[in-house]
Amino acid sequence: MPEIRESAAPESVQEHLREIQALLDKQQLVESLVHKQEMPRHELVESLVHKQHVAELQNKLDALHPADIAYVLEALPIDERLAVWDLVKAGRDGEILLEVSDPVRDTLIAYMEPAELVAAAETLDTDELADLAPGLPDEVMQGVFQALPVEEREQLRSAMSYDEDAVGALMDFDLVTIRDDITLEVVLRYLRRLEELPDHTDQIFVVDRAEYLKGVLPVNTLLVNDPDRRVADVMKTDVLRLTPADKAAEAAQAFERYDLVTAPIVDDNGKLIGRVTVDAVLDYVREAAENDRLKLGGLRQEEDIFASVWASVRNRWTWLAVNLVTAFIASRVIGLFEDSIEKLVALAALMPIVSGIGGNSGNQTITMIVRALALGQISQASARALLTKEIAIALLNGVVWGGIIGVFTMLLYRSVLLGLVMTAAMTLNLLVAALFGVFIPMLMSKLGRDPAVGSSVLITAITDSGGFFIFLGLATLFLV
Amino acid sequence: MPEIRESAAPESVQEHLREIQALLDKQQLVESLVHKQEMPRHELVESLVHKQHVAELQNKLDALHPADIAYVLEALPIDERLAVWDLVKAGRDGEILLEVSDPVRDTLIAYMEPAELVAAAETLDTDELADLAPGLPDEVMQGVFQALPVEEREQLRSAMSYDEDAVGALMDFDLVTIRDDITLEVVLRYLRRLEELPDHTDQIFVVDRAEYLKGVLPVNTLLVNDPDRRVADVMKTDVLRLTPADKAAEAAQAFERYDLVTAPIVDDNGKLIGRVTVDAVLDYVREAAENDRLKLGGLRQEEDIFASVWASVRNRWTWLAVNLVTAFIASRVIGLFEDSIEKLVALAALMPIVSGIGGNSGNQTITMIVRALALGQISQASARALLTKEIAIALLNGVVWGGIIGVFTMLLYRSVLLGLVMTAAMTLNLLVAALFGVFIPMLMSKLGRDPAVGSSVLITAITDSGGFFIFLGLATLFLV
Repeated sequence: MPEIRESAAPESVQEHLREIQALLDKQQLVESLVHKQEMPRHELVESLVHKQHVAELQNKLDALHPADIAYVLEALPIDERLAVWDLVKAGRDGEILLEVSDPVRDTLIAYMEPAELVAAAETLDTDELADLAPGLPDEVMQGVFQALPVEEREQLRSAMSYDEDAVGALMDFDLVTIRDDITLEVVLRYLRRLEELPDHTDQIFVVDRAEYLKGVLPVNTLLVNDPDRRVADVMKTDVLRLTPADKAAEAAQAFERYDLVTAPIVDDNGKLIGRVTVDAVLDYVREAAENDRLKLGGLRQEEDIFASVWASVRNRWTWLAVNLVTAFIASRVIGLFEDSIEKLVALAALMPIVSGIGGNSGNQTITMIVRALALGQISQASARALLTKEIAIALLNGVVWGGIIGVFTMLLYRSVLLGLVMTAAMTLNLLVAALFGVFIPMLMSKLGRDPAVGSSVLITAITDSGGFFIFLGLATLFLV
Repeated sequence: MPEIRESAAPESVQEHLREIQALLDKQQLVESLVHKQEMPRHELVESLVHKQHVAELQNKLDALHPADIAYVLEALPIDERLAVWDLVKAGRDGEILLEVSDPVRDTLIAYMEPAELVAAAETLDTDELADLAPGLPDEVMQGVFQALPVEEREQLRSAMSYDEDAVGALMDFDLVTIRDDITLEVVLRYLRRLEELPDHTDQIFVVDRAEYLKGVLPVNTLLVNDPDRRVADVMKTDVLRLTPADKAAEAAQAFERYDLVTAPIVDDNGKLIGRVTVDAVLDYVREAAENDRLKLGGLRQEEDIFASVWASVRNRWTWLAVNLVTAFIASRVIGLFEDSIEKLVALAALMPIVSGIGGNSGNQTITMIVRALALGQISQASARALLTKEIAIALLNGVVWGGIIGVFTMLLYRSVLLGLVMTAAMTLNLLVAALFGVFIPMLMSKLGRDPAVGSSVLITAITDSGGFFIFLGLATLFLV
């Protein structure tokens, strides 16, 4: 691993970006770099000034941490991105590919030769390789597999077999193990012989001859205890043990709850097979939160901001199509009452208020229930209490907000009855929102689906069509 | 600090919850515990069986990690929550209060005597105390201040002065410092004398006589190097230094990017004043993500699922009121065109499709822009490219989806012109959505406001009112 060169302040990665952009703007640097072959041997391109700019850019890039280069690549349009990518030292390709977002990685991989990709992949650990593998062409993966020693080939195969939401996908195979019958002095001497410890070594795993995990020796314990003491006397045996099939989200909660830096992963027999480190957990938590937000916003996945129109459109069509269908259904519900609207056109102006408030309120309920479900805090008994509470809130909101809008309606359209219908419709639609706001996520969770995805679309569809039906139906009964 | 008892598997906190709920259900345990004073000395309550259940519950709680008790408290209805709270050992109150969510903490604090609260606060470090302070009554905070030694009183005052989004709010004062002119052997002996190191000690801070930070000695470096070497020869000097005023979000990104476990905090003169640990960062990232989601869902803050109806209503009214105003405006826009709708009632049924798709598409654009803004990846040049791209996507979607709906409209209402108006209105509204979807978050960010909050409400308001206006306006021009 190259030495980590950290930036002096958290802001400075944005300064790096600006400096690199300024260098790229100079002297057609991008064209000369990306379209090398096509360019005639123009004097300017070959000039000393130009060469100096390229060298300056190269130096700048060499001094940056791989994660910072990834950040810069993501923020650059395709041409400039590839120009910078060309200047990155070949030995660092792999690490940087690990750090960039999926869609940006695809643009880089598409631009690389298979041989370059194999070389980049070979600089990585097996657990890192497993993260990269889904985006690599088959021929590259075959080359990579063949180049690996047998043990690592097995590790890669097992790492690739885990679901991305499982602890196995976060597994790191790089760990230090010791026996429990030695003294701390011996441990210290053993570590000194290693020359370098794996990143995030906050504890050393204590195993028996058959690699079964017996406990852990925290480095802090090692440091503060008398070197003559035996590992068995000071090691911690009450340790959180993960298995590869555990849910990553639950492991992340455990890291948060118990303030862990690393945790061992054991197989079903208790044999130590790897570990999870807090940096993988932090990435996982951030990514999971981002995915939730993207899905709530109606995007299928993260978007390269410089993606082609076509790539962006594909990322967004699913939700637009779903929305179109639900909007069409709502439209047909209104169509049922065209006669009533023709007779009392005020209904057309008022109906979106009923559906809109219902949707808003339903989404509030869903947000709360989804969070509680994610934390596993809802039991059968509390579900009933929650529903009762949500219904009480809906009634209160219906009477208050529905009442206010009802009075407005009366004044605006000079009809007491229309105002009353408005209040009644709003209250009923809020009740529908409360009912389905509790019901939909609980049902999805019971069916083993993620209640965060789709619940919002469903509740909005129900409160739209339902709101129109309730309001126009009541109006038809009492007004027309 | 009490010994950390970690659970055997990440699921098991939910098992603990179920066991505790089962114990609470037995023999009116809750009533007897919470309403002690009011209860007559009923035989049942005094019975051995009852006493045994209380003891069992107590043992169960004593064995749990503070974070797990917090989890259980959050998942219990108020009465049972307070019953369990009563059984928690007094010395652990403080730690548990730190772990529970704000609204649940308020229910616990409201139930405690001032003296109990002062005692609980006194078990905490100053940085932890600063997190708890905003929720404590003034008289309690005065008591706490008086009980603190002068140095810690200053630390508490400074920790409380930072904005909750600043690095200062994540600061931990508990750190080990050394000088650079000693050998590693001396460092090892010094650490051994400390008996216990602060949590998350992955590096030891190297300072001069005046406490200025000169570098860090990673524990791993300490372990693998020859004990005769001097600190100055092996320490790392190229270190990320945070200041208390740095934004917590940027510090979190640095932790993620550089895979840090701790980072030093220095004052403006470079003097070491504290550190940030990865567990605080992980909590921050999780909370920030959760707050975003709550705000997108229209909740002001996290909600205690067992909060009173009144508390929940207050948490939700702001957004409902905003939504009501925007819905009312949209309704008035429709009101402008009542004559047209009276003449062609199909308009009433079709208009929600135009507004709905516009809102959906606008929210997709906003989600993408807000993410890119949060990462600081949008420059002036890329903003123009982004806008062009979004407009191209809007045109494509307008032609395709607008075309499909246009054909449906033609077939349904047997009017080619109405179909064309529908397609044109959808395309125009999608353009409005793209324009404002880029413009709103960029403007908010320029004004120094968080573009994640409110952008979604604004774009929906614009595409609703705008969609109605465009569709009904075009229909009035060409059809009526």
